[in-house]
Amino acid sequence: MSERVPRRVSIVIFDGFELLDVFGPQTLFKWLPKHFDVDLVGPTAGPVASHGGIEVVAQHGYADASPGDIVLVPGGLGTRTLVDDSAFLTWLAAFARDAEFVTSVCTGSAVLAAAGLLDGYRATSNKRNYAWASGNGADVTWVPVARWVQDGNRWTSSGIAAGIDMAAALIRFLHGDDVARGVADSMEYETHDDADWDPYARLNSG
Amino acid sequence: MSERVPRRVSIVIFDGFELLDVFGPQTLFKWLPKHFDVDLVGPTAGPVASHGGIEVVAQHGYADASPGDIVLVPGGLGTRTLVDDSAFLTWLAAFARDAEFVTSVCTGSAVLAAAGLLDGYRATSNKRNYAWASGNGADVTWVPVARWVQDGNRWTSSGIAAGIDMAAALIRFLHGDDVARGVADSMEYETHDDADWDPYARLNSG
Repeated sequence: MSERVPRRVSIVIFDGFELLDVFGPQTLFKWLPKHFDVDLVGPTAGPVASHGGIEVVAQHGYADASPGDIVLVPGGLGTRTLVDDSAFLTWLAAFARDAEFVTSVCTGSAVLAAAGLLDGYRATSNKRNYAWASGNGADVTWVPVARWVQDGNRWTSSGIAAGIDMAAALIRFLHGDDVARGVADSMEYETHDDADWDPYARLNSG
Repeated sequence: MSERVPRRVSIVIFDGFELLDVFGPQTLFKWLPKHFDVDLVGPTAGPVASHGGIEVVAQHGYADASPGDIVLVPGGLGTRTLVDDSAFLTWLAAFARDAEFVTSVCTGSAVLAAAGLLDGYRATSNKRNYAWASGNGADVTWVPVARWVQDGNRWTSSGIAAGIDMAAALIRFLHGDDVARGVADSMEYETHDDADWDPYARLNSG
């Protein structure tokens, strides 16, 4: 377990990642530079195409990145192929193995599951693609109604905006309510602080 | 006034822009491809450094971009220098002149104001830097308590996350409540639908 300060947050991006899954949490972390330092890790250093085509520049490539204290895997339509990409999954399993926290937003949990990183843990995923996401992993206890799930050092959130609430909860867990509330207020974001709040589970179950 | 379908949303980025000011609204627009098409316009086509250093690739440069139906200017610490950049402001005034909607998030309204694009209009800005932002513009009626302000075809929002609510409100205005609610639900974002909801005005007035 690392106690490096600031903690480094390694966000793993890939072709077809969802921008807001990344930049919701990243914004909270970025506004707390004493506590966190965010690093984008992509297939190679350089532009990576998000879902919809907008490109974001990864600072490091998978092959040369050193693992952060917090590893975050976003969702996006690109996860559909990643869960079958054994070279990527082997890399991710090694990259996240010793992280202090292993986290995901949206269908990023399907990728963590496919890499074996959620075996023995409870986890959630987005609710619109829940049936697909929860088909991944050999021994994951999938939670169908949750804004996010914390189980040990595994934190997995529901879809897109839920990642902001999960990141705020992780900041609260590490640094207390005043720090978490202060940074959410500074971005004028009203957090949902109850991990069980999930109206989207019902909305998307039809 | 354009009636092009889908409407093109031109998001103007610059050194030191705030990522979530862009990718909050962009996510709503992106998930409605029948209605919207998002284009990032930067100083030149290619990487543009956001506040904090992460680079996003602009698809067009200011000099060669054709104006969208909706022009959106985000905030970010880079706005502090933009409001004094007369070449940029002249370009922006021409770029946005015939847009169907001229919009901003956070301190993007200070930039619109400095370009003369809010003269004769009511507008708001983020509440943490409100004193600075509201010092811009020759004839702007600044509104100190507002999640967002619509005045004619000018839509300006408060800080960062408020841009998501403003974009949802603009989508509701154009395409109705079912479309706006549907896309917000798909990103699991609970919108604030009251333009007067603004607890951050009080929080940041101290």
